Amino acid sequence: MFQIHERLLADTFDLGKFELSFVRLHRCADIPWLILVPQVNVTEIHELDSDLRAQLSFEVDRLSKFVAKEPNVEKINVAAIGNLVPQMHIHVIGRSSNDPHWPGVVWGQDLGPRSYNPEEIADFRHRLGT
Amino acid sequence: MFQIHERLLADTFDLGKFELSFVRLHRCADIPWLILVPQVNVTEIHELDSDLRAQLSFEVDRLSKFVAKEPNVEKINVAAIGNLVPQMHIHVIGRSSNDPHWPGVVWGQDLGPRSYNPEEIADFRHRLGT
Repeated sequence: MFQIHERLLADTFDLGKFELSFVRLHRCADIPWLILVPQVNVTEIHELDSDLRAQLSFEVDRLSKFVAKEPNVEKINVAAIGNLVPQMHIHVIGRSSNDPHWPGVVWGQDLGPRSYNPEEIADFRHRLGT
Repeated sequence: MFQIHERLLADTFDLGKFELSFVRLHRCADIPWLILVPQVNVTEIHELDSDLRAQLSFEVDRLSKFVAKEPNVEKINVAAIGNLVPQMHIHVIGRSSNDPHWPGVVWGQDLGPRSYNPEEIADFRHRLGT
């Protein structure tokens, strides 16, 4: 039974699922910060077989193209880190030179308190088509 | 004429080239921190055509497997950020729970002064097969 790590659950909202990966929305609403959690049981991307890696790459690509169209996005940050949450997850973050954390990375920052309301989350799901 | 961004050149050593990407070694010798600079003219991975994306994915995989075998590596961080250097480049970093930056990310940290000597750089090149 696949379960998303409790820390990821606490930090994010459910946006549904692609073929392989659950799609999550980070609660920090200062920036469009989405996270893929592929339903796999290894922690490193290079440990996936080539079919799963190709599918994950396809889903990262799909999500990157989505995030790139969000308002004011100038740069995409894509990262698999996992030092705190070892479960494989890939951040896809839309950055703007006007966002409060620019040009630093978002990990390890004090994030703003603004979260999403249910209508905003539903709108993300609708536009993602999940 | 393809040129690697001067900031990347200043921070890294040349480790040769894969088919698509130049391989660079970050001068911070506290951790095995390698960087791929694909010879392309777009800034975002999702802007690559599918053949180039597949090749880049293959090279990230190859480099990840190499870094995973470095001493004490427990977790791989893979990231395309580019807020400071817009030229496409992918970090592949081997992390250990004993490294001086754990569990934080390495970007934006004050890095230790220890760099590599020429013999260590040559050894990386030899082992990479570039």
